[in-house]
Amino acid sequence: MAAWERESGRSIEAFVGDLCDPTFSERIVRETLPDAIIHYGEQPSAPYSMIDRAHAVFSQRNNVEGNLNILYAIKEHVPDCHLVKLGTMGEYGTPNIDIEEGYIEIEHKGRKDTLPFPKLPGSMYHLSKVHDSHNIHFACRIWDLRATDLNQGVVYGIETEQTRMHPDLMTRFDYDEVFGTVLNRFCLQAVIGQPLTVYGKGGQTRGFLNIRDTLRCVELACLNPAARGEMRVFNQFTETFTVTELARVVKTAMQERGGNVEIASVPDPRVEAEEHYYNPRAQKLLDLGLEPNLLSDELVVSTLGLLEQYRDRVIPGSILPHTHWK
Amino acid sequence: MAAWERESGRSIEAFVGDLCDPTFSERIVRETLPDAIIHYGEQPSAPYSMIDRAHAVFSQRNNVEGNLNILYAIKEHVPDCHLVKLGTMGEYGTPNIDIEEGYIEIEHKGRKDTLPFPKLPGSMYHLSKVHDSHNIHFACRIWDLRATDLNQGVVYGIETEQTRMHPDLMTRFDYDEVFGTVLNRFCLQAVIGQPLTVYGKGGQTRGFLNIRDTLRCVELACLNPAARGEMRVFNQFTETFTVTELARVVKTAMQERGGNVEIASVPDPRVEAEEHYYNPRAQKLLDLGLEPNLLSDELVVSTLGLLEQYRDRVIPGSILPHTHWK
Repeated sequence: MAAWERESGRSIEAFVGDLCDPTFSERIVRETLPDAIIHYGEQPSAPYSMIDRAHAVFSQRNNVEGNLNILYAIKEHVPDCHLVKLGTMGEYGTPNIDIEEGYIEIEHKGRKDTLPFPKLPGSMYHLSKVHDSHNIHFACRIWDLRATDLNQGVVYGIETEQTRMHPDLMTRFDYDEVFGTVLNRFCLQAVIGQPLTVYGKGGQTRGFLNIRDTLRCVELACLNPAARGEMRVFNQFTETFTVTELARVVKTAMQERGGNVEIASVPDPRVEAEEHYYNPRAQKLLDLGLEPNLLSDELVVSTLGLLEQYRDRVIPGSILPHTHWK
Repeated sequence: MAAWERESGRSIEAFVGDLCDPTFSERIVRETLPDAIIHYGEQPSAPYSMIDRAHAVFSQRNNVEGNLNILYAIKEHVPDCHLVKLGTMGEYGTPNIDIEEGYIEIEHKGRKDTLPFPKLPGSMYHLSKVHDSHNIHFACRIWDLRATDLNQGVVYGIETEQTRMHPDLMTRFDYDEVFGTVLNRFCLQAVIGQPLTVYGKGGQTRGFLNIRDTLRCVELACLNPAARGEMRVFNQFTETFTVTELARVVKTAMQERGGNVEIASVPDPRVEAEEHYYNPRAQKLLDLGLEPNLLSDELVVSTLGLLEQYRDRVIPGSILPHTHWK
């Protein structure tokens, strides 16, 4: 039993449930009356959403309805509560103009307005996050709620200062084709001696950030809440890389460890631009005090070292892509 | 039994069902292999979606999932099929710049792109249509489907050349606060001697079109299908009016019939700009040959005459707004 359970006389089990169950989502908000809600409770995988119709519908239903239930519970019980919602940089896609943080001032035929940045999401999952963003924006405009939409890039890294305190606190490490992310996957492929599989031309550029910075961003958002009626959008990443650049970083780190690994191109299972312009802005979190932990060879080398300890657990057949966008 | 039923040996009952049931939506597409699908099968009311959480979730689930099921059925069985989808002008809201047809060329920091027009929908229902538009755009971009999104204005009028052929073909006439539209409601209020209830200042401006033009627009879209990979957007209205202007049109028509009616302001149950800039474009359907039937005093006078015949059926208590956005 944790200290807060002893003090409050409540058990954590009382707050475990499905956000899509409106009775549950209403009750946790009503009983805890939170100052802020950090909403991470969504289906998080693009490939999962693209498996077939049923997975697409599940992803959109689960994410959109859970989020709507939270918005209604806030409206009813804690209208001053700050919703900190996990979005994704993938909502924007790869337009041919600079990507601003959530909104863009458009000058058109002699008039001006600042409007939601147009979205070109690349999967049924990314679409669900776009739907969420529109729903949250509406709730802020109409009901005067306050929210921060964290359009997060791809997270890498395996530990924070907190998780290092005890092995039981280790994060999960996803490397498979469905839930894995690219740098994690490359590190794992290097450790088990599999070529680093770059999808297509490898010119796909994305925003990335260290898991330590991820948590700092959430903390900064909570410490500096949005105003009533405002849906604030932060682009949450610290650097951009192409997929090929990341493969080279891992190859170099392997060489520093005295090993080697090949880089191999495989057909891209996704439908996406394999070479494109990409210049997203990410200034607002820096303005609030974020001090980025940039990607370093040391981090990749130490990740490779840790993965070595667990290489016997790897399921190699789960790595190559089986889910296709077409 | 209709002629097509005799000829095909099939009953209409075989094609009645719920688009949200994936077995049904897949089967009707697989069994009929259509060249075009005119998708009108959605919850169509903004106030209905704003009644409470349950109605909001129902509206988004019903509309988004039914539409996703149709998209997957087209992808699987008839990828060349043209989806003609009923959207709404309400997806755009009332931005301070001219509203283009679906897309806008944005010049930003020295670069250019043509991107989806930013959306400011005004209800949970309008949000569901925005979600649909993003999902359809994705299906066209990724799967090379073809679609036309008809961003329709507010429809008025009670008959077409077809419905005049027999009384059984009459359209429904919605005048209540939930499913009714403004000009229909004003005509009915005039007939039963109730003041025309303008919401708030009455400066809300919207696009309108005659029901005859609605059907001609759908026909023109089908006769001139979108290209493979294209989600084409038509803004489907012929004129814009403020709510106050429409009240005055009805008042004038009543006077032409030798009657009179008051215009009264009631507090706006919605959260919306009551005075605003509004200049949406609607050129593409004109280019395809639409010849608008503009709003005339004659049409309103004849509508009033027809409604007189049925005034005994009116449920007066259903007219004033009980559903509030806040």
